[in-house]
Amino acid sequence: MTKEAPRAVIPKPAVVRLSNLCVLLENMEEEGRDRISSAEIGRMMGVPSHTIRKDISYLEQAGTGSGYYVSRLKKIITEHLGFDKYRKACIVGMGRLGSVIVTKNGFYSKDYKVVAGFDINTAKFEKTQTDIPLYHSDNMNRIIRELDIKIGIITVPEKQAQKVADMMIGSGIKGIINFSPKLLENKREDVFIRNIFIAGEFHILSALISQSERE
Amino acid sequence: MTKEAPRAVIPKPAVVRLSNLCVLLENMEEEGRDRISSAEIGRMMGVPSHTIRKDISYLEQAGTGSGYYVSRLKKIITEHLGFDKYRKACIVGMGRLGSVIVTKNGFYSKDYKVVAGFDINTAKFEKTQTDIPLYHSDNMNRIIRELDIKIGIITVPEKQAQKVADMMIGSGIKGIINFSPKLLENKREDVFIRNIFIAGEFHILSALISQSERE
Repeated sequence: MTKEAPRAVIPKPAVVRLSNLCVLLENMEEEGRDRISSAEIGRMMGVPSHTIRKDISYLEQAGTGSGYYVSRLKKIITEHLGFDKYRKACIVGMGRLGSVIVTKNGFYSKDYKVVAGFDINTAKFEKTQTDIPLYHSDNMNRIIRELDIKIGIITVPEKQAQKVADMMIGSGIKGIINFSPKLLENKREDVFIRNIFIAGEFHILSALISQSERE
Repeated sequence: MTKEAPRAVIPKPAVVRLSNLCVLLENMEEEGRDRISSAEIGRMMGVPSHTIRKDISYLEQAGTGSGYYVSRLKKIITEHLGFDKYRKACIVGMGRLGSVIVTKNGFYSKDYKVVAGFDINTAKFEKTQTDIPLYHSDNMNRIIRELDIKIGIITVPEKQAQKVADMMIGSGIKGIINFSPKLLENKREDVFIRNIFIAGEFHILSALISQSERE
């Protein structure tokens, strides 16, 4: 019943699963679901149910044995993982994908708000319909520091991605979402990089289908 | 030295890692790299090196003990995972993100070629600059069967995503890339779904940064 135990450091893979679980619970809450079992969570997330129970045990002392209350579990995860505060983000690379993300109907999330966009080619700004201020990339370091931006979104071509990531990290950014096909290397313990490697997903699908056809 | 052993069924998580490894090796080949160790692969992919060695052991009898030849390993993975054949894909949902994907400069991949696009609102087609034929969604089943399309890309809003996925699977699609925020349930063993959950990635970053600030 102490407050200490749940605040222990949660292993990174568990943080990732709990983050995904939180989104799943949000969906269920909207659909009016009341309770859910670890078996059902496991099936939906493609993870063994004992892993789910272990992940949740980092947050609270013990499970009920008869599943979880959707709203209560969502609230616990939200509080412990810090989803209740939103963070400022910037985006570098105002090509087509970058433009999708800065528009209001882009990838909406309560966790972040894009407050600045950058590109080396300011001519692109004319085509972008957005209220978000756009700057030449030369201003990255200054703007990121002034606005205390902690999340960076990379939508530049492959060859510029690592350089942009290094500049972001040098300016104080702590988390990067990388949409370029370049797998970014993570050189620092206190910075987190998520490579969203879309071409890789097609690669994976192709392999899974080939395997299945062979069986 | 038999050809049989490497053709054994490779576990799904290993297929996913080998697919990603293949892309990494492609990058390295372009950069002119000759050899790579499992330790270096592991570091770049964030996976233990013994897992990498185990994954590769599904494809060939034994490692050399002194690393792998980049080009040779790429070739072995490509052949075994069936990356040498390309597949036809269709996309459902011709909004902004869908439009990015059907344009030539979208997410390029040798593994697939988008041959058809669908939307319930054909007025959107006028704004889309593409050579790919676009159809009203009512034609989905017929076109997917006629063209023998095996991969489906979902870029519709959350509420329509599961319905579209079910329609795709009913028409013979074997692999789905889902960009909608709805986590799609996989009801069939012979169909593979990859949920590209971008808002979830921000959720994960937010949690990792919060944890790090607390330490």
